[in-house]
Amino acid sequence: MNEIRIFCPATIANVSCGFDVLGLCLDKVGDEMVIRKTGNNQVTISKIEGQDLPLDTEKNVAGVSALALLDHLGSTQGFDIEIYKKIKPGSGIGSSAASAAGAVFGINKLLGEPLSARELIPFAMEGEKLASGSWHADNVAPALLGGFSLVRSYEPLDVIKLHTPGELYASIIHPQIEVKTADARSVLKHSVPLKKAIQQWGNVGGLISGLYTEDYDLISRSLHDGIIEPLRSLLIPRFSLVKGAALEAGALGSGISGSGPSIFALSRGEDTAQKVAEAMAGGYAGSGVDFDIHISGINPDGMRVLQ
Amino acid sequence: MNEIRIFCPATIANVSCGFDVLGLCLDKVGDEMVIRKTGNNQVTISKIEGQDLPLDTEKNVAGVSALALLDHLGSTQGFDIEIYKKIKPGSGIGSSAASAAGAVFGINKLLGEPLSARELIPFAMEGEKLASGSWHADNVAPALLGGFSLVRSYEPLDVIKLHTPGELYASIIHPQIEVKTADARSVLKHSVPLKKAIQQWGNVGGLISGLYTEDYDLISRSLHDGIIEPLRSLLIPRFSLVKGAALEAGALGSGISGSGPSIFALSRGEDTAQKVAEAMAGGYAGSGVDFDIHISGINPDGMRVLQ
Repeated sequence: MNEIRIFCPATIANVSCGFDVLGLCLDKVGDEMVIRKTGNNQVTISKIEGQDLPLDTEKNVAGVSALALLDHLGSTQGFDIEIYKKIKPGSGIGSSAASAAGAVFGINKLLGEPLSARELIPFAMEGEKLASGSWHADNVAPALLGGFSLVRSYEPLDVIKLHTPGELYASIIHPQIEVKTADARSVLKHSVPLKKAIQQWGNVGGLISGLYTEDYDLISRSLHDGIIEPLRSLLIPRFSLVKGAALEAGALGSGISGSGPSIFALSRGEDTAQKVAEAMAGGYAGSGVDFDIHISGINPDGMRVLQ
Repeated sequence: MNEIRIFCPATIANVSCGFDVLGLCLDKVGDEMVIRKTGNNQVTISKIEGQDLPLDTEKNVAGVSALALLDHLGSTQGFDIEIYKKIKPGSGIGSSAASAAGAVFGINKLLGEPLSARELIPFAMEGEKLASGSWHADNVAPALLGGFSLVRSYEPLDVIKLHTPGELYASIIHPQIEVKTADARSVLKHSVPLKKAIQQWGNVGGLISGLYTEDYDLISRSLHDGIIEPLRSLLIPRFSLVKGAALEAGALGSGISGSGPSIFALSRGEDTAQKVAEAMAGGYAGSGVDFDIHISGINPDGMRVLQ
């Protein structure tokens, strides 16, 4: 196999209570990428369609991740990458993660899978570091593993794939405003009240228990974030209105996707997710804010090869 | 049925990372209690064997819990309670919870079970409030439900019974020193660094995932507490030595039971738990500190009726 075309899924990191530790993989939202072996020993990016992103390998998250993987493997095989970008950078649904994880997934496939999907995570994190300045796994892990991922620890890296109930669907609205990563970080406080931290880890425990037992009510009761959301939501116009509309329409829970500005909701069943998406869109009616809407099941497998 | 004899299990609250939200129920450590219907409309405590505790119903955790339950049920039935105390008060393994939960469990049985075990939790919490001044459920919930319990939330009260892997055993050492509840509280800080809070909820997530998937390695990796243990362990002589000995002997993890002074360890298999208990005892060799040792499986069912 000398060429591969892959689907690189979008992801929702944090998932309310799970700030910095939880992420989930989407099924119907994502980029495509074509990777082919070349005769030289370089990684090139010959084409990026849909977004204005750097073609320079060292400045591109896919390129940097690919180089980190090939360096680790001691491989001198060359590759060319074409990226068909459908996830908007800066939307908060893992645009950079899709490219970073896609590059290492595709190259690993073309090399005969010397590494497992789990083992690819640290190389995709190199791309995340280039994109955001921080070495985080809560998007690349679910993009590579599928379903819900828990990043239990960074030192050492310990990622757990959780059970994902089959009827969960995500509705996402991406208001087309810019939330700078620096601003999303600067609003966070370095310390949190112990009482709120206890509530948060109670909710993390409830959410994970609900995922394993497919208890949608428990998932709903646990989808709260009393620490990050009250701060970051101030950067997203009409956040409370849109979240309220999602819950009113039957969503199990709603919150900020990643560091925003996208707002996600989780629902039981696709019909409800559709209604929830419409309600969320209604939240921006008359605001003058443009937005995209996505509805997707949870992708159990992560990256996939397209025919 | 006019009389019942019950086993009232000891419990381990907090369980390292799960401060204020997790607890587990022991199988071989506990009190016994005899409860019988009487001809009057009062709750009396006619006998407490093994400890010097108040017989005055209003001053006894079992009495207070019984009164709260009967008041809720609108029952004028009278009951007499005998308590055979084997759990030492102040040991940190749920002595007051065993009595509080035992009283409501036994009375509910004698009344034909108008309430479920879960519905009994708030009444047992009245006893906990008398004992410690705070309305907490992380001992009474596992005592009533068995296995591992998660207290996801207090407002409203939301307790989840988690899956418990069959090969988990607890080793507990109770150094006979007094740790005053006020001291155990006063060492806590009102706020915690966000970074440590994230690590803690990552570990709560890992532990709960490990319980559901019976992944003992993951349970082991997750049994850490970077927030409370570093502060409270200073009140327990030789804590680090004893914990270190437990881990060296093969324990999956070790920490403070409740607010101490007992130290618990969890192991895979009874043989390992036995070795771990011996190693923990070795930690107090030559210290002049007297101690009790307990080894127990996890009790999947909680309170039980004895023949």
